[in-house]
Amino acid sequence: MTERGATLGPGATIGILGGGQLGRMLSVAASRLGFRCHVYEPAANPPAADVAHRTFTAPYEDHEALAQFAKGVDVITYEFENVPTAALDLLESIVPIRPNRRALAISQDRLSEKAFLRDLGLATAPFAPVDRAADLDAALADIGMPAILKTRRLGYDGKGQARITAADQAGAALAAMAGAPAILEGFVTFSHEVSVIAARGLDGRVACYDPGENVHRDGILHTTTVPARLSMAQQTDAVILAGRILNALDYVGVMGVELFVTPAGLVVNEIAPRVHNSGHWTQNGCVIDQFEQHIRAVAGWPLGDGSRHSDIEMLNLIGEDVARVPELAGRADTAIHLYGKAEARPGRKMGHVNRRLPQPLNAPPMSPRGR
Amino acid sequence: MTERGATLGPGATIGILGGGQLGRMLSVAASRLGFRCHVYEPAANPPAADVAHRTFTAPYEDHEALAQFAKGVDVITYEFENVPTAALDLLESIVPIRPNRRALAISQDRLSEKAFLRDLGLATAPFAPVDRAADLDAALADIGMPAILKTRRLGYDGKGQARITAADQAGAALAAMAGAPAILEGFVTFSHEVSVIAARGLDGRVACYDPGENVHRDGILHTTTVPARLSMAQQTDAVILAGRILNALDYVGVMGVELFVTPAGLVVNEIAPRVHNSGHWTQNGCVIDQFEQHIRAVAGWPLGDGSRHSDIEMLNLIGEDVARVPELAGRADTAIHLYGKAEARPGRKMGHVNRRLPQPLNAPPMSPRGR
Repeated sequence: MTERGATLGPGATIGILGGGQLGRMLSVAASRLGFRCHVYEPAANPPAADVAHRTFTAPYEDHEALAQFAKGVDVITYEFENVPTAALDLLESIVPIRPNRRALAISQDRLSEKAFLRDLGLATAPFAPVDRAADLDAALADIGMPAILKTRRLGYDGKGQARITAADQAGAALAAMAGAPAILEGFVTFSHEVSVIAARGLDGRVACYDPGENVHRDGILHTTTVPARLSMAQQTDAVILAGRILNALDYVGVMGVELFVTPAGLVVNEIAPRVHNSGHWTQNGCVIDQFEQHIRAVAGWPLGDGSRHSDIEMLNLIGEDVARVPELAGRADTAIHLYGKAEARPGRKMGHVNRRLPQPLNAPPMSPRGR
Repeated sequence: MTERGATLGPGATIGILGGGQLGRMLSVAASRLGFRCHVYEPAANPPAADVAHRTFTAPYEDHEALAQFAKGVDVITYEFENVPTAALDLLESIVPIRPNRRALAISQDRLSEKAFLRDLGLATAPFAPVDRAADLDAALADIGMPAILKTRRLGYDGKGQARITAADQAGAALAAMAGAPAILEGFVTFSHEVSVIAARGLDGRVACYDPGENVHRDGILHTTTVPARLSMAQQTDAVILAGRILNALDYVGVMGVELFVTPAGLVVNEIAPRVHNSGHWTQNGCVIDQFEQHIRAVAGWPLGDGSRHSDIEMLNLIGEDVARVPELAGRADTAIHLYGKAEARPGRKMGHVNRRLPQPLNAPPMSPRGR
């Protein structure tokens, strides 16, 4: 098969599956490089529509709309990994999808993802598939408690998960899966979580941003701080590990790789085949941010320079946090990023801010990795 | 008159007159703050349409379209100062225009602009109005040669101008004005040109970016380098001078102030009541760039932190320069900004690049003003 649009020139059009804030920021980044974006999103008035050249509002089951969308673009990427397989099959018959289907398939299924990582020789939390009650008993016996039961597919930000701390919670946990295939994961004792935002170009080159340190609240990312607390060796490990994942998948685009820092080394928590909330700091810490890096990759451009010029703390604005904007807007060194969402529902990501941290005294102008 | 939309909240809509690259980058900046933009532009397929929520394609004489545009937005700003007065009257009867009409009126007319600056006590090139041949003779006798005859209105990037180096060129220069009211300007002996990108908020606060040093080619801006070669005293003068202009106009938004550096002090070349090509470096040199600063001001937000974290050289990509993009895309420390224009006509601004300059050895992390 001849791949269309190997390298995109000015005026080319990029299709984005998903119209949330990630799509919005991808579209903005694409505009910087002279591209237009068409957005496909089932929900009405998505955040990305404000900055897209065209928006398709249709379900992923509408094959006519999907075909029309695919025919109008030179390449398709996504901000959302849970696009149905049939839709992807149709789209891919018309135009290339980057990152590729394998990355999507693996990350759509927690079990496939964990197995893929284990097969690469990377450390993960202990895990076992759970399709029925007997599986869960065996898995709990094997992995121990506390453990966490998760649906294999379609969960994010803490949804579709049940914690099991005692044997009598197993039944309720399984019931919470509503019959969906599940995976039991053991807990990992870690000191903190970091993530590597890694990119791989069409030419196979890999580039990683400096790892960021993540703090979650109520299962949702709260802050990412860069640089993360990592030794030089840990940083090198993190980058090599991310590179192995991207190479193994022949990946093109940006990926978020979440890692637990443990005394025994780095443990991969999960991967996301897209730009990632923990990479938003790059908008104000680097010349080329994760959104442009992703667009460069899917457009077949060389990757950009992702070196960090500033130390940043990214803070998510969740739900009513957005009421803090007037106060935050008056702060020096704070850059505000809002998603244009009208309603501030609890748990809804409304925006984020990137705060430039004071440079440590006597630091060289370009902070080296680590601190 | 009660002013609508004094401070805009999330989901508000900003109207932009003019759909070129400045409108494109303003719309992107507005999206970061959670706003939508509607663009009004007579030409079809303008660059800003790719990232606008809605685009009106109609002439400035179409009062029905203008009214519809104005009714759909909370405030109007512009990327283009030569909007006809009748159109502005109509728009302003519906919704506030920021920066205000006085700033527009002054900058639409080179003579008004020079007179305004002189009345503020600022140094300008010597000038005289030229409405007929006799005026030109008198003005040439007064100002001397070489001099430059310019139409009072509607000229930019070297268009509508005629240089006079000998008396026998006067007739041809006047003919080149095609009967339009003109102004004769004397030359200023200067070592280099700098510009100050200044901003003033709705609350009257003024903030200036570090001055950039401009080099023109064929009458079009070629590079802006920051920091500019200026003494501390010159820098202070530049900032104070810009502040006086903005305060005198009760200005709200970003203004570009071009200055000649002469042994006798700073001479104002011209002012532009909008974001300015010589401020594009701020996209990669500051946390808050000129586009966001302008949006913050017209939205009634506090101004952002425009301190410079990096030294930058901005290079315009004019016409066929855009063919350099594949090579430039591979350079570290170079950020590319393209405007999505399909055709690379000579003299057409297709994009620009911002290159981070190496930090001077032993410089503090945040470069102070000057060098």
